[in-house]
Order: sequence, then structure tokens, then C-alpha cells
Amino acid sequence: MKFGTVAHDGGTRAAALTTEGWRALVAPASRPEDGDAYAVGSPTADLSAFLAAGGALGPGTPLGDLLEGAEPVAPLPRPAKVICCGLNYGEHIRETGRELPGHPTLFVKYADSLVGPTDDVSLLAGTDVDWEAELAVVVGATIRHANRAAATAAIAGWTVANDVSVRDWQYRTLQWFQGKAWDDSTPTGPVVVTPDEVDPVAGLTITCRVNGEEVQRASTATLVFDSADLLAYISTFTTMRPGDLVLTGTPGGVGVARDPKRFLADGDVLETEIERIGLLRNVIRLPARTS
Amino acid sequence: MKFGTVAHDGGTRAAALTTEGWRALVAPASRPEDGDAYAVGSPTADLSAFLAAGGALGPGTPLGDLLEGAEPVAPLPRPAKVICCGLNYGEHIRETGRELPGHPTLFVKYADSLVGPTDDVSLLAGTDVDWEAELAVVVGATIRHANRAAATAAIAGWTVANDVSVRDWQYRTLQWFQGKAWDDSTPTGPVVVTPDEVDPVAGLTITCRVNGEEVQRASTATLVFDSADLLAYISTFTTMRPGDLVLTGTPGGVGVARDPKRFLADGDVLETEIERIGLLRNVIRLPARTS
Repeated sequence: MKFGTVAHDGGTRAAALTTEGWRALVAPASRPEDGDAYAVGSPTADLSAFLAAGGALGPGTPLGDLLEGAEPVAPLPRPAKVICCGLNYGEHIRETGRELPGHPTLFVKYADSLVGPTDDVSLLAGTDVDWEAELAVVVGATIRHANRAAATAAIAGWTVANDVSVRDWQYRTLQWFQGKAWDDSTPTGPVVVTPDEVDPVAGLTITCRVNGEEVQRASTATLVFDSADLLAYISTFTTMRPGDLVLTGTPGGVGVARDPKRFLADGDVLETEIERIGLLRNVIRLPARTS
Repeated sequence: MKFGTVAHDGGTRAAALTTEGWRALVAPASRPEDGDAYAVGSPTADLSAFLAAGGALGPGTPLGDLLEGAEPVAPLPRPAKVICCGLNYGEHIRETGRELPGHPTLFVKYADSLVGPTDDVSLLAGTDVDWEAELAVVVGATIRHANRAAATAAIAGWTVANDVSVRDWQYRTLQWFQGKAWDDSTPTGPVVVTPDEVDPVAGLTITCRVNGEEVQRASTATLVFDSADLLAYISTFTTMRPGDLVLTGTPGGVGVARDPKRFLADGDVLETEIERIGLLRNVIRLPARTS
């Protein structure tokens, strides 16, 4: 099953993508016949609210009205935690000159970092902006000290993300955070696909294109730490809750590892795609700003 | 003026510490005569809610009832962003063998990391737990691309924090986050002191004691990047909002830099104090857990 948050009728709604189009999700606690009874901030306003209210995503999720003209936006607009794994594809690790890791390398973004599948990525003129196509795990249950089985059961589904990175800021100091957590930097979407429909461990092709030229291609089967590994590991030190996101790392082909290095320019079109999940198409904007 | 969040009458309240004791804050929008009309989640339930609702902290903040028997808890229970600066005191930078930095080194914790001024710090048996006494800045206004003047104006006040760190996890990979963002690791409080009353740039003595033995002592005047520097810098890449926290870094004397290295044990009493702000006194708990 495919789920998302859609723009519809001047607001947003949590919805399922069916063969007929987007259908509203019905709130987990009460299930009124008319989905329009829900307002912004209600359990059906977006997938963050739906999951936080105890909603579950899957073939049994109750569906409401068909939402004519709905368009997908960022599926999880308000995760409290967006944790990212670096150095998690063997070939990308090799291009950075490092050994295969014993532990996942983790850093973070914020809800403010996230934009939707067709939104502009808006950063700052004069910075070194790079692409990182990634599979993102959506957390569906509250977990702490989870073993692998509990972590697997806590996966609500997967979406596509691009961990767009400001390389000069990332490498100003030892800690990458300041190059990773820029507002409006990180496309996500267009849908969350549940485990009944896809299995990233079996292998999904992930690709990234800049102005139509393919710059990254890999299989999610080659991830060093898979989704359950990452959730279990993270849950050792912090609680993960419904709607939180984990970005699982990017394969080889990033701009900073090329010779010569290559960065994104204002107006570049960045496409990020994962087989059987979907496509993000975002325009890079690098406005000048003064402080 | 000193403000905080207090446990009172089975709930919590945003409050000011006066010579008579703790007095309830009155909600910024409506100001009923009886503060007890506010419930949990209301603008006066805690300082996070009060600041998020547009409340300002200072000599002009309207005060309500005296809260008999009130005890301070974590002053900001729900910051969306808790950003920490490393390597920000000259002597601590030297003990790690590094040069004075051109940019602040930034990493994060979560709201889940925070505990109050007398709460236990609860981590995990078998880990290398270390102390880091720190001055924390409380953000009082929404800022993005702030210059130094705007950043200075956005400071609501300062509180005491201890950036308790799990060193073995911190150094497992290149990124410190996984050693820094443990739930229930980071004492904060007991009060937020506003700029009319203290000036960290002029110098406040910060100390840390373990079982009564002083292990850190410095002046906040020796910070490389001061509070306004940090807020302005961070606001270049992400929006900071009322109630967010910035931990400004720790001075020399941490356990991992000693020879031999020294870490905290279960039952150790950790005291963190900043002159004219207050004292945190927390017991370290290192329970065994299996995943």
C-alpha cells in the first residue's frame, strides 16, 4: 500500500494512493462517514498526525472519500526526529577512502529541513550544494531498546529522500550537522510504501539525476546497515516514535567525491527515484541573503 | 529576573522565582485573575509553552499567584531544537589537542535528552559516561539569518546544563551525535535568568563537581563564540524559535581528557553550577539493559 500527505481543497490530508486516485484516511479513533469533518491539526490532517494518533498504515487501513485533484506534499511534515546514516553503501564508503564500519555513523536533520516531492530546495548562493539520494524509513511505533524483531515490527514503511548537503559547511568543523540541517534542503516523498509491498533488503534500485544526467545508481540490497539494524541501534540511546524518519545513507556518485568536484547550481533540476516507491523532482534555488 | 518550570499541585507551571518564592506566570494573551484556570498544555503549563505562546521573560512579565511548595523541574521541557557547541573554551580546546576554531563545532541533543535540576541522569551500564558543565542559552524569539544585534535581542536568558556524554559511543564513528543524544542524559535548570540580571560575556564562574570534588572551573568570559555569535551562526542555516536551547560548550577538566581517563559510576553525584544562575545536583544511574 502507498500512503502520503496530499494538498487538497486548500489544506492537507493524510491519504492512500489507490488505483482510483488518492483516498482520505479515516482517523484511527473515531471514524466519521464524512472525512471532511476533520480540520487542520486533526488526526487525518497529515501522516505525522495520523501516525501520532495511533493510526497504522497497511492493507487494513480504513479509507474514506476519493480526494479529487489531490497532489502529494512532504509525507511526514513534523517528525520530532530525523536521523541520518552516513557511509552505509560499500561503494560510497570506498569513494570517501574509508573502511567498512562496525557501527552506523549518525547525524541529524530537522522537520524544518524537509520539503515535498516537487518543492524547491532553497539554500544559499555561494555554498557547495551536493546530492545524496536515500531510502528513508518511516517509524510506525514507539521503540526503545528494541531488538531486531521489534525494530522490524516498528517500520511503517519507506519513502524517498535526498539528503542534500552543503559541503563547505559540512566540512568546516569535525561535525557534519551544520552542513546537513539547512531549512528547506531535503526533498521527501512522494509516498510511504508499506512492508507488504516492498522489501529494500531484497533490493530496490535507487537513482539520482541532475538535469536528466544520472549521477547515482545502486541497489538498496547493498546497504551495510539495513532499516531494522538502524532502528534497533538508534533505539539503544533514544526513543523513536510514530512519524520519525531515518535516512539510510547514500550510494556512490556524490559531487564532492568527483574529480573535479561538482556542485549544484541555481535552477538545476534534481531527480531522486527509488523503484516501486516513486520520484522526487526538485529545482535547486540558491538565493543571496545577507545577515 | 529568574524564571522556571515548577512542579506544583500535581502538575507543572511556568513561574518566576521572587524573593517570596515561586509565582505563577500569567498567560501572554489572556490574563485571568486566577492562574489556576490554566490546565496542562496551556500557555502557562511550562516555560516551553509560555514562550511558544508569545510570552516574554523579564522584569515586565506579569505574575500571578504564589505557588506554595513549588519545586523547579527542567525549565524548557519541549525544545524542538537543542543545539550544542563543542570546543568553545580555549583551555578545553587545548586539552583535546586542537587549534582555536574559525567556526563553531555543532551537534545536537533532543528534548528527550533533558532532565531537571535534581533528576537522575539515567544511562547504561558498561558505557563511558563523562561530565561537561555548560552555559545554555534560551531562545526567546523566532530568528533566521539574524545578525549579531538580532541574535542578541532573541536571547530570553540563560540556564545551567551538563552535556553528559557517552564517550565510547561518541567516538565509535566520526560523528558525536550517538554519544550525545541519550534520553535522560542532560540536566538543565534550575532557572532561566534574563539578560537584565546576568551577562555571561562579562564572566560567570562555571564549576562541575563529582561527589563533591571540583573537576571543572572556568569563566564564561573565556568562551570563543558567545551566545549571540552562536545564535546568529545557527540562524544562517535553520530557524530558531522561542524555547529552543543552545548549549555553549564545556571548559577543560572533562574525564576523557585526564590521564588516566575518568568516567562516572552508578550512584555518583554530579553537581553543575553557574554563578548567579544556580546549581544542578543529579545522581548518575547506570542500569543494565538488554535489547
